[in-house]
Parts: sequence; structure tokens; C-alpha cells
Amino acid sequence: MSKIAPISGFPEYSPAQRIVEQRFLDVIRETFELHGFASIETRSIEPVERLSSQGEDADKEIYGVRRLADESADAKWGLHFDLTVPFARYVLEHAGTLEFPFRRYQIQKSWRGERPQEGRYREFTQADIDVVGAGTLPAHYEAEFPLVIADVFAKFPIGDFVIRVNNRKILSGFYAGLGIADAQGTIRVVDKLDKIGPDAVRELLRERGLTGEQADACLRLAQISAADTSFVGQVRALGVEHPLLDEGLTDLAAVIEVGAAHVPGRVVADLRIARGLDYYTGTVYETQIVGREDWGSVAGGGRYDALASDGRTTYPGVGISIGVTRILGLLFGAGELSASRSTPSVVLVAVNDEAERAASTAVATALRARGIPCEVAPTADKFGKQIRYADRRGIPYVWFSRADGDQVKDIRSGEQVPADPAVWQPPAQDLRPQVTRSGD
Amino acid sequence: MSKIAPISGFPEYSPAQRIVEQRFLDVIRETFELHGFASIETRSIEPVERLSSQGEDADKEIYGVRRLADESADAKWGLHFDLTVPFARYVLEHAGTLEFPFRRYQIQKSWRGERPQEGRYREFTQADIDVVGAGTLPAHYEAEFPLVIADVFAKFPIGDFVIRVNNRKILSGFYAGLGIADAQGTIRVVDKLDKIGPDAVRELLRERGLTGEQADACLRLAQISAADTSFVGQVRALGVEHPLLDEGLTDLAAVIEVGAAHVPGRVVADLRIARGLDYYTGTVYETQIVGREDWGSVAGGGRYDALASDGRTTYPGVGISIGVTRILGLLFGAGELSASRSTPSVVLVAVNDEAERAASTAVATALRARGIPCEVAPTADKFGKQIRYADRRGIPYVWFSRADGDQVKDIRSGEQVPADPAVWQPPAQDLRPQVTRSGD
Repeated sequence: MSKIAPISGFPEYSPAQRIVEQRFLDVIRETFELHGFASIETRSIEPVERLSSQGEDADKEIYGVRRLADESADAKWGLHFDLTVPFARYVLEHAGTLEFPFRRYQIQKSWRGERPQEGRYREFTQADIDVVGAGTLPAHYEAEFPLVIADVFAKFPIGDFVIRVNNRKILSGFYAGLGIADAQGTIRVVDKLDKIGPDAVRELLRERGLTGEQADACLRLAQISAADTSFVGQVRALGVEHPLLDEGLTDLAAVIEVGAAHVPGRVVADLRIARGLDYYTGTVYETQIVGREDWGSVAGGGRYDALASDGRTTYPGVGISIGVTRILGLLFGAGELSASRSTPSVVLVAVNDEAERAASTAVATALRARGIPCEVAPTADKFGKQIRYADRRGIPYVWFSRADGDQVKDIRSGEQVPADPAVWQPPAQDLRPQVTRSGD
Repeated sequence: MSKIAPISGFPEYSPAQRIVEQRFLDVIRETFELHGFASIETRSIEPVERLSSQGEDADKEIYGVRRLADESADAKWGLHFDLTVPFARYVLEHAGTLEFPFRRYQIQKSWRGERPQEGRYREFTQADIDVVGAGTLPAHYEAEFPLVIADVFAKFPIGDFVIRVNNRKILSGFYAGLGIADAQGTIRVVDKLDKIGPDAVRELLRERGLTGEQADACLRLAQISAADTSFVGQVRALGVEHPLLDEGLTDLAAVIEVGAAHVPGRVVADLRIARGLDYYTGTVYETQIVGREDWGSVAGGGRYDALASDGRTTYPGVGISIGVTRILGLLFGAGELSASRSTPSVVLVAVNDEAERAASTAVATALRARGIPCEVAPTADKFGKQIRYADRRGIPYVWFSRADGDQVKDIRSGEQVPADPAVWQPPAQDLRPQVTRSGD
């Protein structure tokens, strides 16, 4: 039998950490639903052919799947490495029964065989929202999506955050206006700015054939950032002209204005944001936790004019993906998040004697009927031992059935008071485990 | 590019079906937590060696997983085919930090490469509860688990159900008392009773070397069933004696008594229940939907004296697994379940003019702040078209911003009334999509 050991890149949480994860997932789901996104899940596998058509680097990271009994056959299927490829296939497969624009969210695991490191995993959960149109999709969705993400992140116990927004038309138009032929290639180089710094980016741009002036202009554009529409004037001051640039500036100004009106301070124009993926065609987003900019983006996405196409109809979309396992991995790694107990139980119902277990079960049943999570003690040990059972799990209350009337003890304060299982209610902050950030 | 097509055995739901699935999963999670079970999730993969040590038939159903870049290597990992094997490994891996008895629930997908059919899938969700002790585990947990399952199923929109219970000690003791040497082999044959009928079982038992009298006694035992402890007298009347039989009868009587006291009518002693798996050593459970006995068991499990062992400590447990995808597949297949709408949105906020979209967004923000899921219309079309957008999704209310005060229209009745986004509340039954069983 193989040794029992963790598998690198496949994180598993303790029961208390899982409570933190569930709280994050509940916030995400509840908020996505408040914004009218419908849930779907897709199967975990896709045909390898569909997965591997997505780009040069993707192939070697795909996990192939086949029955052990069919080992000789080539893998036909692979585990999906994101939720966008399966969603595009789902839209094409079910286009006849879906209503467009289709607003969906999807919270599922994905798998990538890349080298694991903190905040980067081989099995990870992502939470995606997308809106997809059949043929056309109005630009106002590009302004709406940061409002949804801001609503989610404001409910996370992670402090301040900012959603950085750019528009690929600004980059493409600006580069074209400068006379640079290869906009995509230039975008990919400028995208490395945070990682390698301006000098190295300038050098790489020169290697691609840009003049020093062109490279400097690209770098100056990337340095522009503003929480209001003042970025438009700053770009204009660089003196580059192109119709696509005009279009991009108008679109980004609209996104920033909506953000400033509805979630002030959260949405910032940042002209260095590029997102390497070729399929983005308009607005692009990244999200940073303030003070943790070194963690990079924890939620990103953008506008794509062709999420999918069946030859007759093209489906444009806007999407953002929250890296749930990434955020949790970084926060757990920094020791910043914890839960007040390792179980949902808020009450342990003590047992006087095994012959009286039914009475304790009746108390538990009465509490549960009113939505109070609880459990009955495992054995009719001395009460001190039953209290320690609760204490080790962080269960705050122990219930005693007594001939002269039931009592409940808050084992944190030691206070013990008469209580009736038909009416007693724990304080609201005790009902569910508390999730706190250290320092809160 | 591969043709877009479903993959047999990997079900995907429509947004409305997914709302039904979420409702089932919410009921399960909420009820498990009310009963003090803590959630864990395990990674999707285990070492193949660990998976394939579980039994003769399991091997060929395992899906091996490896990076496409490593195609030549043997598969080291496989997708888990249930939640018990990974949980046993999790307990051994984390025994040092877990508190025992450890009550956990786990709701995750599993994968099996078997032939798909209705109610049997290759990718499926199970919802498991287990309690595991270190060294020992009191018998009262065997009586507690049917209470949890009864609490869950009573909240499902599936009508009447019954949890059938037996005890492996009764079978082993009875067979030993009859002088049958191979109790496990006999159990596996009697387990086929529902599928192949008593005559075929009798023949198979004779083929295994049982006398006609022994085989008849086995069949008579299997016909005993009672919702109270009267089954004890019926077994005694068969005249077989064995200490293990006595122990099993006492244990099963205790389970039935607790069931009768706390969830009357739900827990029935049924001495034909065997559950083929060798690792069960005490109580075994199966759950049937009344009127749908042909669907077989939709939630089953039992007591096992050795879930896991590290050589020093053995971990006994009691567990039950709910076949969520199986239940939904059968109910969807029978056309019995539906949701009242395909989106969480209860309100569509109409847009008068694209220039006034911000006003509609402000209404939506106010509604969301009070927990009312809604969305803003995709385009400032004629109101008739905006109403049809809501109608096609089953969204019951459309909100109009008007200079003389906002109004909200119930598009089912046509009634339109003045409304303030800071105070208006939809009726409770409209707030979430309704999940109904046909005939309700």
C-alpha cells in the first residue's frame, strides 16, 4: 500500500479551514445570485481536442483521463483547466434552449499540471461569472461586471481591494497610432511590466524592432492610472491619434464613470493592465488586495467578441473569474484567516446516563427544529470530560438536562442559566462559526 | 475540432434543473450541519494503488489521470470512485490533528467507468456522513444515523420514504447457527433477492452446497420485516441459535426503538438488506422512495469496525451515503421535478432609455441590499419586449422607474402597483425559485 502523504498542488483543508472556504463560497454564490446570475455546472472532462486547441502552453498542462482498463488507448478526454472552455462548449451545445443574453455563474474545480507553488495549484476552485449574447452584446455589461466583483469582495474579510481596468482597444489603437504593426506581441511584452520592470520591457520592445521613442511611449502609456476619467487627458497628452484609441478611451471612461457612481474608489483605470490572452477584445480587469499587490491579481477577466461560434452565430461575452483557491491559499499561507470552531455545532447536549440518551436526543431535535446546530455527547462520561469534548472543538455551549429544569452553560465565561429547548436562542454571533482575519 | 456532443454518463443540467439540484444540496448541507457534522473535501485523485486495493471489480472502473506530457508513464493517480476511500486516507493522514469521534460530511463528485444507464452515471455527486472513532465507537451512533437521513429526506419534495435496516451480525450469526460455513458468500447471494427472486436465490444457495433446509431458512429470514421490535420474535420462531445472532437482534432492536421514538414510521427492520460490501460489520441501511421501490436504494451505508488502520490504531465508523445524482437523474427522468424559473432573479428592472440606465442600476442596488435578487434589462427596448425578456425566464416582477414614482408589475396577474425600492418586498414564496414535484 502506498504511503499516506499529501500530493503537491492538491490542497486539502482542515475542518476549520473548510469553514472559512465555505464562507467565501457562500458569499460568492449569494452575491452572484443577487445580481441575477444563474448557476450551471459542466462535466469535469472535455474532449482533449477541444482543450488543446486553446493555445500553445495549455497542452502539456492538461491531465488526460481514461479507464485503467483501456490503458493502451490514447486519452480522448482531459480534465478541464478552466471554466471558460467548458462554458463555451455548453453555450454551443445548449444554444437552442438557453435565453440570451445568458447570465451564468459557475463555481467548480479545475485542474492544471503546472509546477505548484504558494497560490498556484494543480487542483483549484474558480468562481466565474459571464454574460453571453447571441450575435451582439451591449457594452454596458463591461461597466456592470466590476460592480458585481466589488460587491463580492466588500463582503470578504480581506480589507481593502481595487479593481484595475483597461481596454484592449486603447492598447491596440495606441500602438497602431505609433506605427507598431504587431499589437498582440507588444501587449504580451508590456504585460510583463510588473514582473520584470520597465528597463527589461523597454529592451524586449527594442528587440521586437520598436524604436526607442515607440518603446518609451508604450511605457508612458502603461504608467497612466486614475480613479476618474482624468486618464483620458493624460493619454491625449501623449499625442498619439487613432480611431480605435478614441473608441477605447470612450469605452473605458464609461466603465470608470459607472464604477465611481456605484462603488466609489473600487474601480481604477490602469493602462498597464493587458492580460496576455489573445481572446480579449475590449475591457480587461484585474483585482488586487491593497497591501498585497505582490500577490498579483486574484480576480480577472474581460470582454471577448467571440467566446464561441458555430459558424452561423458568434457569441460575444464579458466574464470575470475569482481565483478562490488562490485567495485562500495566500491568506492561509500568511496565517491571516481562521474560524472560531471546527464544527457547525453551537451546542453540545450532555448525556447524564446512557439510559437517558433519548432525553438528550429530544433536546437536540427541539434545538435543530429551530435552526440551532448541535450534537449529543458521544458518551455519558463525567460532565468535566463532556465539557472538554466541547472545548476542544470550540463548541461554546453545553446543555444539561436536569430534574429541576434544563440549564445551558457558556463554557467560555462559565455562566450557567436555566433554559428551555423550545425557546432558548444563542446570541446571533455564536450561531455560525466566526470567520476572522487576524488583527480584526 | 471535435463535434459538440454530450458524453454518455456525464450529465449536465439546464439552469432550471441546476436550481433543483442546488435546493437538494442546500437541504442536505443545512441538515447535516444542524446535526453537527463538519464539512471536509478531499482532492479528486488518489494513488491508483490505494484505489485498486478496494476490491476485484473496482479496478477496471477506475479512471487513471496523468499529464498529457507524460503519456508514456503509467498512471500513478486515479479519480476517486467514492468518498469512503479518500475519507479513510484523510483520517489516517490527519489523525494527529482531528478530534475523535470525528463527525464529518462530504459532498463531492466521484467517477466510475461503468456502463451508464438511467440513475447510474460515470460522474456523480454523493453526499456522505460518517462518524469515526479512534479505537472504539459506541453503538448508539448506529441508531442516530437514520434520524439524520430521515431529517434530510423529509425535506425533499419526493413524498414518502422508508429507511430499511438490518444488522450483519444477524445474518452471520443465523448462518453460523444453521451450520453454514461461508457467511460472506451466502450474504452476497441473498443480496440478489430483489433482482433475481427467491427461486433463483435458492438455486444459487444450493449450488454453494447449502441443503434445501438451510436455503429455505435463509429465505424465510430474508422475508421478515417490521416497523417495531416484533421482528425479534419472528426470527426466534425460526429456531436458530447463535450468540452472534443474539447480539445482532439486540443491536437492531435498539436501532428500531430509537427510530420509532424520534422518526415514527421511517425506520423499518428488513432482514433481507445485506449490502454486498465485505467491510460492513454491524448495522446496514438502505433507503427507498415509497412507490418507487423499483429504483432501489437511494441512500445506504452501515457500520464498519475498520474504516482505516495505521497498524497501531484502528478507526471504526458508521456512515451513510446519499446518491444525489442518482435521485435527481431518476426524478428528472420521470419528469417529476421542476423549478418555477431558470434564474435567481425575482425582479427585472426595466430601462426607460440607455441614458437612464444608472437610475435602473440604483434601483437594483437598493433591492439587492435587502436580499432581493434582480437584474437590469439588457436593452432599453419597448417595455413589451422587456416584459417578454422577464417572462421567458420566469421572472415574476418587472420594475418601472417613473417620474411620478416607481411601480412594480406582477407579470403573471398583470397587477401593477406603486413601489419604493427601499421598502418593497416580494411575497416570500416568490423570493427564491419554487421547486415542485408534479402533482404537488
